[in-house]
Amino acid sequence: MDQAQNGLGQTWQNPLVGAVIVKNGQILAKGYHHRFGDKHAEIDAISHLKNEKAAIGATLYVTLEPCRHQGKTPPCVDKIIELGFKRVVVGQIDPNPLVAGKSVERMKQCDIQVTNLDNSKSMNLAYNFYYQNSRPLITLKYAMSLDGKINQRNGERTRLTGNDTFQDTQKLRLMNQAILIGENTLKVDNPQLTVRCNPTFPPLRIVLIRNAQKLDLQQAIFQSKGPIYILTSYENTQVLPENVHVLVDEAWTPKKIIHFLAQQGIQSLLIEGGSHIHANFIKSGLVDNLVVYIAPKLIGGTGLPSVWGQEIFEMMNFKIKQIVQLGADVKISARRVY
Amino acid sequence: MDQAQNGLGQTWQNPLVGAVIVKNGQILAKGYHHRFGDKHAEIDAISHLKNEKAAIGATLYVTLEPCRHQGKTPPCVDKIIELGFKRVVVGQIDPNPLVAGKSVERMKQCDIQVTNLDNSKSMNLAYNFYYQNSRPLITLKYAMSLDGKINQRNGERTRLTGNDTFQDTQKLRLMNQAILIGENTLKVDNPQLTVRCNPTFPPLRIVLIRNAQKLDLQQAIFQSKGPIYILTSYENTQVLPENVHVLVDEAWTPKKIIHFLAQQGIQSLLIEGGSHIHANFIKSGLVDNLVVYIAPKLIGGTGLPSVWGQEIFEMMNFKIKQIVQLGADVKISARRVY
Repeated sequence: MDQAQNGLGQTWQNPLVGAVIVKNGQILAKGYHHRFGDKHAEIDAISHLKNEKAAIGATLYVTLEPCRHQGKTPPCVDKIIELGFKRVVVGQIDPNPLVAGKSVERMKQCDIQVTNLDNSKSMNLAYNFYYQNSRPLITLKYAMSLDGKINQRNGERTRLTGNDTFQDTQKLRLMNQAILIGENTLKVDNPQLTVRCNPTFPPLRIVLIRNAQKLDLQQAIFQSKGPIYILTSYENTQVLPENVHVLVDEAWTPKKIIHFLAQQGIQSLLIEGGSHIHANFIKSGLVDNLVVYIAPKLIGGTGLPSVWGQEIFEMMNFKIKQIVQLGADVKISARRVY
Repeated sequence: MDQAQNGLGQTWQNPLVGAVIVKNGQILAKGYHHRFGDKHAEIDAISHLKNEKAAIGATLYVTLEPCRHQGKTPPCVDKIIELGFKRVVVGQIDPNPLVAGKSVERMKQCDIQVTNLDNSKSMNLAYNFYYQNSRPLITLKYAMSLDGKINQRNGERTRLTGNDTFQDTQKLRLMNQAILIGENTLKVDNPQLTVRCNPTFPPLRIVLIRNAQKLDLQQAIFQSKGPIYILTSYENTQVLPENVHVLVDEAWTPKKIIHFLAQQGIQSLLIEGGSHIHANFIKSGLVDNLVVYIAPKLIGGTGLPSVWGQEIFEMMNFKIKQIVQLGADVKISARRVY
């Protein structure tokens, strides 16, 4: 698992994977999946063996079941069988239907002892979630006052939280493959939705704009690089920057948005406002995680609530996973429970 | 200070006070203010001396400046002078204008050495606040969902928080001399507003009802003992239980309510709903402390916000003092900062 963590932030839609080769109680080699498109952890470990013959009779520990399909690299399971490993210990079965236990079966048929420890799923929550649920893991995030408001007045930007919270939201963005906001948030906050540290794989930026016939191309988001998807109900006829893609549907419901993202292979989505988008996703039951930043302020009786609009008939229950103080603010992370 | 804590919950509008008598490095006696109306801490300590003559040349440590006025008991300062104490160490000057440093002056004039450590104010926050500000210390308390709502639908009661939070709110009530709610909360929640442990001095219960011409005497609050003040704009002509007092004013603004409570000697007020009352007190700037219980739920886009109604033009700033988990809930306590 330590090995696997080396690839953090670099493997994009691939999982974090680490591998160790052991023989006679000695570690012969270690490896990990360095970045999206690079060789897999097993092959990385094998490449660190002084001699591939050392693999004969050795045990391979790998946090994820080896692949058996030709992807960006050849199937790992073939190499493992070919080199004569005696035993393979996996941290979890790969939920990707192209693998899904088939590599384990194949190795067993080739007389390799296989053990599944089933102890490394937490390392790739979104990856596992995506293949189990055929949709991205959805995190709803907002910053609110102690009276649950995100804005002092609708249509105005209210700076609520401090710098520590800002840094934390940057990390949160980095942990997601896509970010979604609505048109009000675009207009009021005028965000870039970028991650300041210029990661190799920044999240896709998605903006829901009911009528995108005339986009304001002066907005900060359009001055930045990286793909932007505009989900709208009206065709756009402007000359747009190359990285801006307009997708038209007569009604972009949360379900349709998530279906579209799933098709793009997006495993995790961060929803960043505004309060009507929040209410719509809650109404559709499409919230898995919640991250609430609370600023030590009262906005008062006419501020815009963090979730506002669509009614739901049953409260949605969560379990609090973490509470931390970030400067003067408080961060509460919670996971949905059923 | 340890001595003083013995009186917790029993001294009502009197402060917690502890006293220790020391001579030649030895503790001769300890005392504390046991309960409202009882003898003061100094006199309690003196009463534990084997012989009052032992006080000659001794040092008296007392967490609050001794009184010099005839209240429910005779002035302590006279007794201290009479017994021949050599030195008196006080934890703080008594902010009550009847004392306010005058006892210290008097003892000095009688050649007693007096030291003020100024280290025990935190023990009697409301008492000190009351005399410094001529009004009670006001705590706003509510339980809300992770999206800042207190109710699923206006007019319906929504049970949000768990038993640990209930226990905590009972303690909070016990720490306040009065509780205030509005008519909606009375109707929807039908609370007794009592403290389950039957304290000696339960908080006064105050209900703001615009039109109290016809009270629903079947409500739980009217089945309970202890004084209830109904603040209203319309005279009531019903035959009311003895403990129910109706006070008429054409407009009970937060300022008027607080002024009335200050006149009653009430040093601390807990506001317990609903969201319009909260908004009105915030609008008036009359919130000193905030206690927010957060239940791990989302109520969604049409729930009633914790604070709703009157607009404020500047956000009110707080400093977070404590964050604790109470079962599945989170409690955030904050103090106003200017």
